Amino acid sequence: MSLFRPAIDRTDAYLPGEQPQEAGWVKLNTNENPYPPSPRALEAIAAASQRLHVYPDPLATGFRRAVAELFQVDPDWILPANGSDENLTMLMRTFIEPGDVVDAPYPSYILYETLAGLQDGTFRRLPLNADWSWNHAAVGESIDAAKLVIVPNPNSPSGNRWDDGDLLRLLPPRGVLVVDEAYGDFCDVPHRMELLRGEDGKRIIVTRTLSKSYSLAGLRLGFAVAHPDLIAGMRKVKDSYNCDALSLAGGEAAIRDQAWMLENRGRILATRTRMTETLRSMGFEALDSQANFVWATRAAGDHRAIYDFLKSRKVLVRLMRFPDARPGLTGDAAVVEGLRITVGTDEQVDRLLAVLAEYA
Amino acid sequence: MSLFRPAIDRTDAYLPGEQPQEAGWVKLNTNENPYPPSPRALEAIAAASQRLHVYPDPLATGFRRAVAELFQVDPDWILPANGSDENLTMLMRTFIEPGDVVDAPYPSYILYETLAGLQDGTFRRLPLNADWSWNHAAVGESIDAAKLVIVPNPNSPSGNRWDDGDLLRLLPPRGVLVVDEAYGDFCDVPHRMELLRGEDGKRIIVTRTLSKSYSLAGLRLGFAVAHPDLIAGMRKVKDSYNCDALSLAGGEAAIRDQAWMLENRGRILATRTRMTETLRSMGFEALDSQANFVWATRAAGDHRAIYDFLKSRKVLVRLMRFPDARPGLTGDAAVVEGLRITVGTDEQVDRLLAVLAEYA
Repeated sequence: MSLFRPAIDRTDAYLPGEQPQEAGWVKLNTNENPYPPSPRALEAIAAASQRLHVYPDPLATGFRRAVAELFQVDPDWILPANGSDENLTMLMRTFIEPGDVVDAPYPSYILYETLAGLQDGTFRRLPLNADWSWNHAAVGESIDAAKLVIVPNPNSPSGNRWDDGDLLRLLPPRGVLVVDEAYGDFCDVPHRMELLRGEDGKRIIVTRTLSKSYSLAGLRLGFAVAHPDLIAGMRKVKDSYNCDALSLAGGEAAIRDQAWMLENRGRILATRTRMTETLRSMGFEALDSQANFVWATRAAGDHRAIYDFLKSRKVLVRLMRFPDARPGLTGDAAVVEGLRITVGTDEQVDRLLAVLAEYA
Repeated sequence: MSLFRPAIDRTDAYLPGEQPQEAGWVKLNTNENPYPPSPRALEAIAAASQRLHVYPDPLATGFRRAVAELFQVDPDWILPANGSDENLTMLMRTFIEPGDVVDAPYPSYILYETLAGLQDGTFRRLPLNADWSWNHAAVGESIDAAKLVIVPNPNSPSGNRWDDGDLLRLLPPRGVLVVDEAYGDFCDVPHRMELLRGEDGKRIIVTRTLSKSYSLAGLRLGFAVAHPDLIAGMRKVKDSYNCDALSLAGGEAAIRDQAWMLENRGRILATRTRMTETLRSMGFEALDSQANFVWATRAAGDHRAIYDFLKSRKVLVRLMRFPDARPGLTGDAAVVEGLRITVGTDEQVDRLLAVLAEYA
């Protein structure tokens, strides 16, 4: 007899993404920011490293205050997390009893499904239209039954953003809507927590990360923003010292250096436009993106061959395949497949495009 | 109706321990190491901070290899964690279904009970004898029913260590024994994972932290050591990037600098002896400790008054009170109460003793 919970035995072993630790790769597969973090963040980390023998501030006072000022809320609206992934784990542990329904769009971030399963939740994929818009009539019943609806906005792998009207229709009547804004800073007009201001906002949680726009993927730092009543519940499942002293110091400094983040964001948006247009001129269908990646597909469907060719030339992109993604269709016709390509530096993108030109 | 799980509503809000962030305190309340971490750890952190825009190694290859070499096991026996607290959370999420029994000695680390409750486990306190030894006959039935038995060794607040014979009798016949060795390096003769070598060892998990002996409480890094079959299950609930790049780099360097850790450990053991003897000469009952703290009680029971007096002089110790700790007794007679005092530097301990002398 297994010593593990049945949910553990049911779950596939984790296959880590490709994170080559050696140099020489053009790494466009995990949506990292190609630019370095704020020098002020590095200075704050260096200073904090002189006091590592003591525990970090369990209240994360300075970091929460910086985030609160940025979004014009009180610090008790902020919960810090050891990366957005921990935020999602805390959400499941706070809200989901065995059998409770967790909804998320599909195709989307696959981790939602894994985490719901580990909590013995009933996960339901909400199918999207072929143009990545919502078919509200088709998903309404599942929304009505949900305890938690998780919507990444912008979505991955598509990079599109849904508007507030769409999001409010996804708020479950007896549950909580989580808007995962991991890529929120790359929108042409970023959200500023507007969704949280109204009465409906008391059942909406926005999650953010410093991994992408702030160039701090290595630091593991994210946060949730929500009404204090919701934060108070989530805080009960949070480890007291879930964020370390270096992350909190570096994260606070990075948040306070908006000019640095915005300058890198500006570079990425400019490169995104050029990359999207060039991919289109090379025969790709490339979606307009509101994130730091572009979803590129080809009518020929030779995505794996392209991925392999790029990899053989040390250019790493993400090959993604979502079976059963088209309601009413079966087999290959129902599969959504393509390449999700991170917007790197101009130099990295030039290299990508040059290797693609060789392939074509 | 509450939006939260019933277990969340049942759980009291977390009250963070006293972590004054300003200078001037003699801080002997949370068992931090008063000496700085290895300079090699700080160098490794500084080097790793130059690559924070990319994700950390999800396999924690270098860190796991260093730990594996130290304990002469294969790296697949090692699971890294964002502090020992995350290790405990992962243990609950791996093994505990609603109603499953979780046992731990009492008085002991109170977090075990909270985490079991959050997972809807049935927590049972295993009462200890007044001299902190085990009454195996009295706890046998609960052990037989347990899925998880968690034993801190050395124990807190008492600082005593139980021998392997005791521990093996606490291995549940259809479950897993967790030995929490947070303070293991401070034993006169530290364990070297001997418990894991035999057939019984396939159901034993040892957890360790770098917070105490390696002076890295601010970094949040711990690890579990167990048979790869157990680690494989725990890995499924682990966030892919649960440990950040700075922790992994600093932790690996700290583990590889055993000489530094052992030198600080030696200082702490010498101070521990002197502190214990002086406390006794001042009328305290101070237990022989195998950890980096001493459990001190007074027949007069004026622990709160002493705590308050020390705090008024900026010396912070831990006042701990465990109701219903003595089987067969009730009310005050059943309470275990005292002061848990961290072994600081000689200078800090001199200050503690001087203020205590003023009180007496």
